Amino acid sequence: MSTYSYYNGAYAPTEEISIPLTDRALYFGDGIYDAAIGRNGSIFLLEEHLDRLLGNAPKLSIPVPYEREELREILLETVRRSGFHSYFVYFQLSRNGGKRKHVAEASYGANLLITVSELDPPSPQTIQLVTFEDKRFEYCDIKTLNLLPSVLASTYAEENGCGEAVFHRGEIVTECAHSNISILKGGKLITHPTDNHILPGITRRHLLSAARKLGIPIEERAFTLEELFLADEVLVTSTTKLIARGTVLDGKAVGGADEDNLNRLSDELLREYFENT
Amino acid sequence: MSTYSYYNGAYAPTEEISIPLTDRALYFGDGIYDAAIGRNGSIFLLEEHLDRLLGNAPKLSIPVPYEREELREILLETVRRSGFHSYFVYFQLSRNGGKRKHVAEASYGANLLITVSELDPPSPQTIQLVTFEDKRFEYCDIKTLNLLPSVLASTYAEENGCGEAVFHRGEIVTECAHSNISILKGGKLITHPTDNHILPGITRRHLLSAARKLGIPIEERAFTLEELFLADEVLVTSTTKLIARGTVLDGKAVGGADEDNLNRLSDELLREYFENT
Repeated sequence: MSTYSYYNGAYAPTEEISIPLTDRALYFGDGIYDAAIGRNGSIFLLEEHLDRLLGNAPKLSIPVPYEREELREILLETVRRSGFHSYFVYFQLSRNGGKRKHVAEASYGANLLITVSELDPPSPQTIQLVTFEDKRFEYCDIKTLNLLPSVLASTYAEENGCGEAVFHRGEIVTECAHSNISILKGGKLITHPTDNHILPGITRRHLLSAARKLGIPIEERAFTLEELFLADEVLVTSTTKLIARGTVLDGKAVGGADEDNLNRLSDELLREYFENT
Repeated sequence: MSTYSYYNGAYAPTEEISIPLTDRALYFGDGIYDAAIGRNGSIFLLEEHLDRLLGNAPKLSIPVPYEREELREILLETVRRSGFHSYFVYFQLSRNGGKRKHVAEASYGANLLITVSELDPPSPQTIQLVTFEDKRFEYCDIKTLNLLPSVLASTYAEENGCGEAVFHRGEIVTECAHSNISILKGGKLITHPTDNHILPGITRRHLLSAARKLGIPIEERAFTLEELFLADEVLVTSTTKLIARGTVLDGKAVGGADEDNLNRLSDELLREYFENT
């Protein structure tokens, strides 16, 4: 499937774009990214994704080469030029320096890379899960390009016939390789607090908003693998899936005991998407 | 200063090389690397660097696109074409896939990137150090491209007028941002054991061999920040520096109490370099 891209001023089919050896994404993963979905020329929750990207850049002292308005316009223009009706938009800001060296000089600039690919709109779905030890760094709250542990976990999940890997630090469930994870138990929604062990997901935030709107109590606290196995429902949220219902964990059936609340949350997130795109 | 590179079959000045968007180093840091120094057309300890690279590849299931002999020949040919007399050779293997996605398919290939830059031969030197909290992942024994914490630490060191940052997990000293660290205390050489919290440095290994040869007892054990401040000597070892004497840590003078053993170790490492290049 072809994709369409943008890099530092050039719009082109992805295979026509190439990256210079000054891009420090290549050597260090020295950059940040964000990703969104959309259709009909719009990008869902674009302002929140821009907030996150522009909030992460100063945490790594990565300069942002465009004003927010320009960035928004370039993203929308890349979408328009792609010609896709329903899509995934990936955008990354990486530091650009001279010769490879660890020190990031204050004089270095940044590269903007955008890729748009076709993607069906989100729909209710189930997902099988497998556990994977969370050995990641303590910067998981920043959406960086240092994603090797997520690559290893995702690949392990696929090798085991699963759609996602559930990271756990010892007994504590943190998040998934590229999603957040929450449970419903006794009518309450329980999810890991936003600290440096999880990515503060935008869909996670909207899940909490939906729960508040629907009168479902929320507990933002760490929960254990045992609680995950015994949950009434397991909810996996991400930008592309919005919400998926976890049905199997390490080969054992999980959830299925609070479909009512699960469906209400899922309906709310999907409604929000279709009303705003 | 110009550098000379190789990428997937093409030899060229670095600015003429460019990378396709299928190179997963760009999105995930999905790759490994190694680096060596050399002069007069040779690469110092090349077989050990090849051993490490070829040993790391299967840990991430990254396929190696060349036989060892071809890899050796390409490295030496890149050095020859660079025209440099004394140099630093950087080489990385990154996974090559299709569209960006976390899962690394078994069918994916790999890219080989090499860059050669001019570098003076190693010489006795001192280095100022600053401490930096080690929040890295638990895969530090693999020489991967997920190096953002080392970028942050190195940049912090430079901002503080220092040449290296000393990582510590709580009170335990692990290594530096791009070097290993050891101390001399009471005539013994003490250094962190090789586990998943440090990179098994090749110069570190040769430092231990030198100590054995010189009759200096070795303790491979974790040591604390307090021990570092109170060490007789602080030794920073890496491929490019070989060995540097730490003189200042967080603005306080350190070491200087066992110059005899320090100089014997340093002389031994330098002698080995000049006799083999």
